[in-house]
Amino acid sequence: MAKAPWVTFRPEIKVLDCTIRDGGLINGHMFEDKLVKAVYDTCVVAGIDYMEIGYKNDKKIFAPDTHGSWKYCDEDDIRRIVEDNDSNLKLSAMADAEKSNYKQDILPKKDSVLDLIRVATYIHQIPTALNMVKDAKDKGYEVSVNLMALSIVKDRELDEALDLFADCEADVVVIVDSFGSMYSEQIRHYARKYLKAVKGTGKEVGIHAHNNQQLAFGNTIEAIVCGVNRLDATISGIGRGAGNCPMENLLSFLRNPKFNLRAVLQCIEEHFLPLSKELEWGALIPYLITAYFNQHPRSAMELRAGDKKDNYVEFYDHWNEA
Amino acid sequence: MAKAPWVTFRPEIKVLDCTIRDGGLINGHMFEDKLVKAVYDTCVVAGIDYMEIGYKNDKKIFAPDTHGSWKYCDEDDIRRIVEDNDSNLKLSAMADAEKSNYKQDILPKKDSVLDLIRVATYIHQIPTALNMVKDAKDKGYEVSVNLMALSIVKDRELDEALDLFADCEADVVVIVDSFGSMYSEQIRHYARKYLKAVKGTGKEVGIHAHNNQQLAFGNTIEAIVCGVNRLDATISGIGRGAGNCPMENLLSFLRNPKFNLRAVLQCIEEHFLPLSKELEWGALIPYLITAYFNQHPRSAMELRAGDKKDNYVEFYDHWNEA
Repeated sequence: MAKAPWVTFRPEIKVLDCTIRDGGLINGHMFEDKLVKAVYDTCVVAGIDYMEIGYKNDKKIFAPDTHGSWKYCDEDDIRRIVEDNDSNLKLSAMADAEKSNYKQDILPKKDSVLDLIRVATYIHQIPTALNMVKDAKDKGYEVSVNLMALSIVKDRELDEALDLFADCEADVVVIVDSFGSMYSEQIRHYARKYLKAVKGTGKEVGIHAHNNQQLAFGNTIEAIVCGVNRLDATISGIGRGAGNCPMENLLSFLRNPKFNLRAVLQCIEEHFLPLSKELEWGALIPYLITAYFNQHPRSAMELRAGDKKDNYVEFYDHWNEA
Repeated sequence: MAKAPWVTFRPEIKVLDCTIRDGGLINGHMFEDKLVKAVYDTCVVAGIDYMEIGYKNDKKIFAPDTHGSWKYCDEDDIRRIVEDNDSNLKLSAMADAEKSNYKQDILPKKDSVLDLIRVATYIHQIPTALNMVKDAKDKGYEVSVNLMALSIVKDRELDEALDLFADCEADVVVIVDSFGSMYSEQIRHYARKYLKAVKGTGKEVGIHAHNNQQLAFGNTIEAIVCGVNRLDATISGIGRGAGNCPMENLLSFLRNPKFNLRAVLQCIEEHFLPLSKELEWGALIPYLITAYFNQHPRSAMELRAGDKKDNYVEFYDHWNEA
């Protein structure tokens, strides 16, 4: 098994910034252009491999009056920020199974600055997801398939899904700890399982961790040690609920000289520190509690939005009695 | 090697709360009695094995006008909180090599409610530390020896120290990541080394992690997986600089039914949430930077106390140019 070396680096490792895409789950993707541009510029200077700028989701499902551009990633909106993306940074958008009008809204690659389409799916949506994967590959994109809410998927169903993923057109299969409920041993278990499933196919395995238990970075390291080469992170760890693996931590760990930690620190100082006064994310106690009970963070986000946001014991009792 | 099981627990594991002792490094140990009593009561109800209530350090070195009771842990002060400690919770105090007037200030066990003396030492203080270990054991205590700043100790010196620790009177030898600079692979390396060194002596190995890189909990899990049985944690993760492994995370991970997570959540809600408005601790960017450069967090604490507390890039450049 591949080992993460202490003083050198594994050149196969690629980092994907999903700051705007996952962070947008806090505020309906209503970021100012200035911030999106700052993240783009930072990713370019920091040597990050991919930036996921948002979702390719359906305006009929997510109303444009309560969602920003990055819920849909219309080509003109992306180009407003990146122009023709004259850089080494590749651009990604995520499309949710059953929430994306993908046939129409995802353009042929030749007409788009996007490079990668990541298909997000729950276990019951796999047939739709596989259609979306094929559609994106046929249109000329790199493609990833991300099975969400892994911590509540039964082993037998997962085995079937992994067989299908191994045979599908996707280039990458991502381990997604949506509830932030996994410990390093679960990550190791799934990393080995996913790597075994794609062995010989040329596909890579990725990791998308959440920080409910302050384990997003540690679990990402664990996945790296197991041989996972595609890593999701966000600047300042921004993301739904507890947030994600912080990019600044990840780049300080990876030893590849192409990465530039300083650029990320500068972006935090100038943009994310002010933003953190307006939006809340991070490893707060309610998110630890939902992870402990292997629940979606939704209820904790609702708690944090209300008057009882610090009533930890009442929230714990609510789930404990459930 | 011992494995941490997923659905059951390892009964040998013992948890030490060092909330007041390490947290006191933020405020000169000037906590109100009410808070110290709340932590004591919480530890009792939560089934925690040890509570470290402070230091046994020298009033000639640490002036009483700028330090609270828990820098010295005079017997009367401890009893003011715990009376005769009529509970299953054992009490601990730490004594720093060369900063403790231990011969005089550490009473014979029969005259003290303390159960455990933990001797903290840097690598150049080992002979003094060994004298202190012997003194505490002769007086009737359980004894631990904690080698600090491990991330800057040379392997050859560490091997010599571990040989001496294996032969000394201590019951426990603790891995201390003072700078919070270690990744799981270093933790594994040291855990195996320490466990090998004490093999056959009956001594246990412990872990004391710091949260500079948001890895205190993850690294504590890694140590558990390797077979480390003595775990340090603090309520709400309070502690010098970035703080420590959060007790609430640790208890949510450990499956021993004797532990009571709810009691810790209650203590956070009632006491540590208000305290967090007065004192600062946590995995802030400057602590990530000192860990990245394998430095003591002192400079980051100074930064946070001043006007430039969020000048991350300048602080990074300072260390990068050093």
